[in-house]
Amino acid sequence: MTITVAVDAMGGDVGLKVTVPASIQFLQDHPDIHLILVGDQPALEAELALHDGAVRERILIQHATQVVGMDEAPQLALKNKKDSSMRVAINLVKEGRAQAAVSAGNTGALMATARFVLKTIPGIDRPAIAKLLPNVKGTSCVLDLGANVDCTPEQLLQFGIMGSELMACLQGKANPSVGLLNIGSEDIKGNDNIKKTAELLRQSELNFYGNVEGDDICKGTTDVVVCDGFTGNVALKTAEGLAHMFAVFLKEEFGRSWWTRLCALAALPVLGLFKKRIDPRRYNGASLLGLRGIVVKSHGGADVTGFRYALAQACEEAGSDVIAHIADRVAKQLDNLKQSEAEAN
Amino acid sequence: MTITVAVDAMGGDVGLKVTVPASIQFLQDHPDIHLILVGDQPALEAELALHDGAVRERILIQHATQVVGMDEAPQLALKNKKDSSMRVAINLVKEGRAQAAVSAGNTGALMATARFVLKTIPGIDRPAIAKLLPNVKGTSCVLDLGANVDCTPEQLLQFGIMGSELMACLQGKANPSVGLLNIGSEDIKGNDNIKKTAELLRQSELNFYGNVEGDDICKGTTDVVVCDGFTGNVALKTAEGLAHMFAVFLKEEFGRSWWTRLCALAALPVLGLFKKRIDPRRYNGASLLGLRGIVVKSHGGADVTGFRYALAQACEEAGSDVIAHIADRVAKQLDNLKQSEAEAN
Repeated sequence: MTITVAVDAMGGDVGLKVTVPASIQFLQDHPDIHLILVGDQPALEAELALHDGAVRERILIQHATQVVGMDEAPQLALKNKKDSSMRVAINLVKEGRAQAAVSAGNTGALMATARFVLKTIPGIDRPAIAKLLPNVKGTSCVLDLGANVDCTPEQLLQFGIMGSELMACLQGKANPSVGLLNIGSEDIKGNDNIKKTAELLRQSELNFYGNVEGDDICKGTTDVVVCDGFTGNVALKTAEGLAHMFAVFLKEEFGRSWWTRLCALAALPVLGLFKKRIDPRRYNGASLLGLRGIVVKSHGGADVTGFRYALAQACEEAGSDVIAHIADRVAKQLDNLKQSEAEAN
Repeated sequence: MTITVAVDAMGGDVGLKVTVPASIQFLQDHPDIHLILVGDQPALEAELALHDGAVRERILIQHATQVVGMDEAPQLALKNKKDSSMRVAINLVKEGRAQAAVSAGNTGALMATARFVLKTIPGIDRPAIAKLLPNVKGTSCVLDLGANVDCTPEQLLQFGIMGSELMACLQGKANPSVGLLNIGSEDIKGNDNIKKTAELLRQSELNFYGNVEGDDICKGTTDVVVCDGFTGNVALKTAEGLAHMFAVFLKEEFGRSWWTRLCALAALPVLGLFKKRIDPRRYNGASLLGLRGIVVKSHGGADVTGFRYALAQACEEAGSDVIAHIADRVAKQLDNLKQSEAEAN
């Protein structure tokens, strides 16, 4: 199957100076992929002309007259920016002309627009932001990372289903384990909402491990970690802050004197490999899960390398039929619920 | 002033094989401090006999017949363990025989016991767990780290006051800045509870910076970061997990071949300094703030070095009169509240 991805070429802190080179590099590495670059046609053509033309035949330009500002209120963007590069890219997914859309634009506007245009999968109340993150054993999926501040137990169960299917589709995990982020492993921990969620997860057909704690994310205790968007966002950003602090400290220690700089020189090849391994750009690309179409959010400040990873994430999802899998699983969960309600009556 | 600290010598995963050597080392470094080791007298005497006796004259043993289990339910410990090493250590603070208590025991039981025995400062609803953590600029205080799952705006304001006074007393900060942990810096972010808290903090006499995000903790954007115990606990443990993962990755990269091991050897002195700088043992010792007495919680798995840092934290608090400062500030805050209510009527 040929996969076509719609790219919001104007989104992000930098815009087409990042999205266009990233798109070209990505196409060079992936000969089966087609891209539709959405944005200001003359500007896009001018930027494309600066780069190698060999992949040009797999690039289509879709003109869009507007751009959503990085700080624009989601509801205003939805109302007033009907011809934005973001909106048009999502329309292309809706119309079936693209199998996925990627944007480095304003997260709130992207979520609101995607939800409005694509709608949620039946049985999913609200989409969630999910990310595949590294851990000592491999990769796990954490969601929600900021779309939903407060979540009901039912919504958290839906996140569990979505994360589980994403891990099954993208990582080939059979029956991925699901953990509920809490402040202790015992059942008595957390508030009523968390306890009810644990109960629902236990009754579901998911491979529910039980409560996990913050350190279990990087330990890789479970394949999926479920949490509300407030907690998930704080956890993710705290980790980003710590990673940055470690980089600063390492640089300071190796830069103290000519002697420590010599040590750094000797260790450089290995430090380079370490740096590459924890490079956040490799994990760029968060999935807006629960929609009837694939939408991937790149970090607004992503560079060319980072944006390429977001494009790769979109293609992997498009190639794995993750939405059909989520829809199936949610439908089954709803059937089970109805059946157990009928039995109870 | 001579400071005397009561040590729950039986608490923690290991107990007196950690607490006793740590106490002795600590006394060797701090000639003005006295310690009361609380626990099983014969066992304590046997352990003390294995170590250098020079500081023995500054150690008092207080016999206690019981030990609180690490997994014991707080309410059961409170009811059934009235002669536990933990309870007796806190009693010594209550009676004025010690200026602070340190325990590596069960956090829930320690909090419940401390609250029951010492009571909270007037105007403080619930104590919080606070920790001084490193950031790229220096040190900040984060609270609550797990004592209170759900918090009212009033309680979060109280945490702000307590954290602010702790930073003023221990770090000599004049008018420490206070940030409210949220998922975005804009005022519209977060749920109603967070927005009401921001409003209260803005109206207070605290140096309120506004919302901060997870990465601001390590950036050192504010001196104090206020959050509910659920969010704070997840953030702290996520950071711990990431730090551990980085250590594993560094070890793996440097251990790949004889060549990388050679690189490691060359970089060892600098890597050692880096490791020392981020050593979590240096930040061991969380304060149970809001009580009418100083109680410091050591990590249950702390080793001798870690426990020494918890003892140091207790002594610093005891020497700085932090409780009187918190009490003053809270009283003022209550007065202001009454006055503005009177003006409103």
